[in-house]
Amino acid sequence: MTTSTRETRIVSDPDVPLVRITREFDATPAAVFRAHTEPDLLVRWLGPRGLETRVDGWDCRTGGSYRYVQSEDGEEYAFRGCFHDVRPGELIVQTFTFEGMPDAVALERMAFEELPGGRCRLTCTSLVDSFEGRDAFVASGMEVGVVQGYERLDEVLAAG
Amino acid sequence: MTTSTRETRIVSDPDVPLVRITREFDATPAAVFRAHTEPDLLVRWLGPRGLETRVDGWDCRTGGSYRYVQSEDGEEYAFRGCFHDVRPGELIVQTFTFEGMPDAVALERMAFEELPGGRCRLTCTSLVDSFEGRDAFVASGMEVGVVQGYERLDEVLAAG
Repeated sequence: MTTSTRETRIVSDPDVPLVRITREFDATPAAVFRAHTEPDLLVRWLGPRGLETRVDGWDCRTGGSYRYVQSEDGEEYAFRGCFHDVRPGELIVQTFTFEGMPDAVALERMAFEELPGGRCRLTCTSLVDSFEGRDAFVASGMEVGVVQGYERLDEVLAAG
Repeated sequence: MTTSTRETRIVSDPDVPLVRITREFDATPAAVFRAHTEPDLLVRWLGPRGLETRVDGWDCRTGGSYRYVQSEDGEEYAFRGCFHDVRPGELIVQTFTFEGMPDAVALERMAFEELPGGRCRLTCTSLVDSFEGRDAFVASGMEVGVVQGYERLDEVLAAG
């Protein structure tokens, strides 16, 4: 039996300054991966509802880099990083910085794992160099963006 | 009075899985930065004596990437990563992987700080996602490579 859990779990690691997010999707790893790596799909789901995302630079391959800008009510928030490792359908390892805090850098890892029934478990970890930084990130309201973003991703995946 | 300390300090952080290396050089931050970012200079000092370094790819700018191969007694060891942030004379933030362990990724930060007398303090941090990984890295004999590498860097800087 396939359970269709769509709960987003966000766990702060007790030992290291890392956040671990897990979420299952009713789509294959290949499809979920594509929604993370094709800008036309990415802008349709990344972040909370009401925010508009514009991709400003996108070279999604091992050794490439990215930049995108999210806007809401006339305010803009830019994010950028480099792609350390991109393995189609399996893994993305990248750096991540909010340009408003250019010295804060996270190392992110997204693993796309095949589940029975053509489904996918996505596990994302975000590692920073202090517990204070990690806890501030978790307290910043990121949960709303993550949960709503993945609900929007469900819709993108369902639309095929 | 300028003290000419050339001791390399390697400290494992007690709270997070990070190693911090500090070293002073009798050269300006601009010169020490250049020796880290120009491949012709880099290959003359990186790693322990006896190892030969060949740069295989080098695009040292924010959003660029690198790969180099070190060889000794017919064995080759390749390393690669992407440059998250390159600020001339000041800072390099990059990822780092030994290709023999492709799933182990470190987030590295090198800060070049001006000291009186035209000298430079270099502070390098390397962050990974587990204490086991960090401690294995420290126990791997990396200290020899770091200490000897910086002695070789002294020579490169003195040669101008």
